[in-house]
Amino acid sequence: MGFSLTPKDNGFYELFSSSAAHLIEGAAELTAILGADTQDEREAIAKRLSDVETSADEATHELIRKVNSSFITPFDREDIHGLASALDDCIDHMEAAGDLVALYRIDKLPKGVTKQVEILSRMAEVTVDAMPRLRSMKDLSSFWIEINRLENSADKAYRRMLAELFNEEGADPLTVMKHKELIDELEAAADAFETVAHKVESIAVKES
Amino acid sequence: MGFSLTPKDNGFYELFSSSAAHLIEGAAELTAILGADTQDEREAIAKRLSDVETSADEATHELIRKVNSSFITPFDREDIHGLASALDDCIDHMEAAGDLVALYRIDKLPKGVTKQVEILSRMAEVTVDAMPRLRSMKDLSSFWIEINRLENSADKAYRRMLAELFNEEGADPLTVMKHKELIDELEAAADAFETVAHKVESIAVKES
Amino acid sequence: MGFSLTPKDNGFYELFSSSAAHLIEGAAELTAILGADTQDEREAIAKRLSDVETSADEATHELIRKVNSSFITPFDREDIHGLASALDDCIDHMEAAGDLVALYRIDKLPKGVTKQVEILSRMAEVTVDAMPRLRSMKDLSSFWIEINRLENSADKAYRRMLAELFNEEGADPLTVMKHKELIDELEAAADAFETVAHKVESIAVKES
Repeated sequence: MGFSLTPKDNGFYELFSSSAAHLIEGAAELTAILGADTQDEREAIAKRLSDVETSADEATHELIRKVNSSFITPFDREDIHGLASALDDCIDHMEAAGDLVALYRIDKLPKGVTKQVEILSRMAEVTVDAMPRLRSMKDLSSFWIEINRLENSADKAYRRMLAELFNEEGADPLTVMKHKELIDELEAAADAFETVAHKVESIAVKES
Repeated sequence: MGFSLTPKDNGFYELFSSSAAHLIEGAAELTAILGADTQDEREAIAKRLSDVETSADEATHELIRKVNSSFITPFDREDIHGLASALDDCIDHMEAAGDLVALYRIDKLPKGVTKQVEILSRMAEVTVDAMPRLRSMKDLSSFWIEINRLENSADKAYRRMLAELFNEEGADPLTVMKHKELIDELEAAADAFETVAHKVESIAVKES
Repeated sequence: MGFSLTPKDNGFYELFSSSAAHLIEGAAELTAILGADTQDEREAIAKRLSDVETSADEATHELIRKVNSSFITPFDREDIHGLASALDDCIDHMEAAGDLVALYRIDKLPKGVTKQVEILSRMAEVTVDAMPRLRSMKDLSSFWIEINRLENSADKAYRRMLAELFNEEGADPLTVMKHKELIDELEAAADAFETVAHKVESIAVKES
C-alpha cells in the first residue's frame, strides 16, 4: 500500500460543502422575505436569516481551526483560509440585505430586487454542486464560468435599478437611500460569489 | 544557560501596547468632540484626533519594519502583521468619525452616538489591558469574550439609531445622510475592535 | 558563467509596467468624460474606460498566473500578489467613477472633481515611471514620497467638496447623493495609488 503525502482529508471537503449549504438556506430566506406581507413576518424571517449566518460563521471557524491544527492540508493553507472566508462573505451580505428589509420596514421593493435574489439562489446552487469536485479538482471550470455569467447578470440588474432609482422624477430621498443600501448589499453578495469562484479557480490552477 | 529558539522580544510587545494606548487617546478625543459647543472646538479636537492617528500610524509602521527585519519573531509573522493592521484600523475609523463631526458641522448628535463612543472607550481599555498578556498567552479568552459582548452592544445601538433615522417622519435627507455616515464610521470602529479580538484569538489558539 | 539564485525575470517587470500603462489610459478617459457634452459621449467614454479595466484585469491575472507558476520570483511572492492587486484597485475605482458619470447622467460636475482627476493623472504618470526601477530597487523613495504628497492634495480636494456639498443651503438631496458617490470613488482611486506606494516601499525595504 502506498503512502500518500497529500491525504484527501474528508473533513475539509465536508466543511466546505456544509458552508455552501448555508448559502442555499440564506438565499431561501431572502426569497421568503421578498414575499413577506407584514412587518412581523419580515422580522421573523430576518431572525431566521441571522441564525443561518451564525451557523455559517461557526462552520467557517471550524474550517479555520482545522487548517491551523492540521499538519497536512489537501491544498495550500492560505487558499483554504481564503475560500472559507469568501464563502462566509456571501452569507454575511445576504444576511445584511435581509436585515435591512426588516430594519427599514421596506414593503415596496424595487422590481429588480427579485431578479438579484433569483441570481443569488442560482449562485448558491452551483456553488453547492461544485464543492465536492474540490476533491478531484476536475470539472471546476464550468463552475467559475457559470458564476461569472451570473455575476454579469446581477451587475446589469443592479445598474438598471440604480439608474431607475436616481433618474426618477420626484423620488423620495429617504426611500432612495434605503433602497440603494439594500441593492448595494445584494450586489455585494453577488460579488462575493465571484470571489469564491476566483479562489476556486486559483486553487484548481495551482493543483493542476 | 539555555538557548531559546523563540526569544520573547520585548520590542514587539511594547509596540503593541503603544498602539493600543493610542486607541485610548482616540476614544478620549471622540468623547471630547461629542461635548464640543462650538465649531472652533470641534475643529480643534478633530485636529488632535488626526495627530493621534498619525502617531498610531507611525507605531504601526515601526511594528511592520520590525517584523520585516527580525529573523525570529515571538509569533507568526503574518499574525503580527494582521494584528498591527487591525489595531490601526480601529484608530482610522475613530479619526474618520471625529473628522466628520467637524467637517459636516454636526451639532445635534443622534442620542445613540454617546453610547457608541462609550463602548469604543471600553473596548480601548480592555485592549490596552490585554496586550501585555500576549507575552504569556494566558488569560486572553476573557479579552475576546468581552470585546464580542461589547460589539454586540455597539451593533444594537447602531441598528436602533438607523431605524430612528430612517423611520422618522419629515426628517431632513441631508441631515440623515450626514448622521448615517457618522454612525457608520463608529460602527466600523467597533467592528475593527472585533477584528483585533479575532486576531488575538487566532494567535492564542496557534500558540497553545 | 555565474549562476544567479535570483534571476531578474524580465517578464514580471514588463507586466508591472503594462499594468501601470493601463492607469495612464484610465486617467485619460476620466479626463475625457469630464469634458463630455452629451449623454451619448459619456456612455461612449464609459465603455472605453470599461475596456481599459478589462485589459488591466487580464494583465493582473497574467501576473498572478506567472507568480503561481514560477519557481523563482524577483521578490517575495506575496509582495508581487499585493502590488499587482493594488495596481488593479486603482483602475477599478477609476472605472467605477467614470461609470457613475454615465449611469447617473451627471452633467454639472462639482468643481473639485477636475482637481481630483488631475491628481489621478499625475499619480498614474509617476507610477509608470517607477515600475522599471523595481529592477534595480534604486531611487524608489522619490516615488512613494510624491504619491504621498499627491494623496494629501486629493484628500484636501475631496474634503473641501464634501463640506460644499453638505453645507450648501437648499441642495437637492438626490444630486448630493450622486455627487458624493462619484467623489468617493475618485478618492478611493487616490487611496489605491497610496496603497501601491506602500507596497513598493515595503518591497524596497525588504530587498535592501
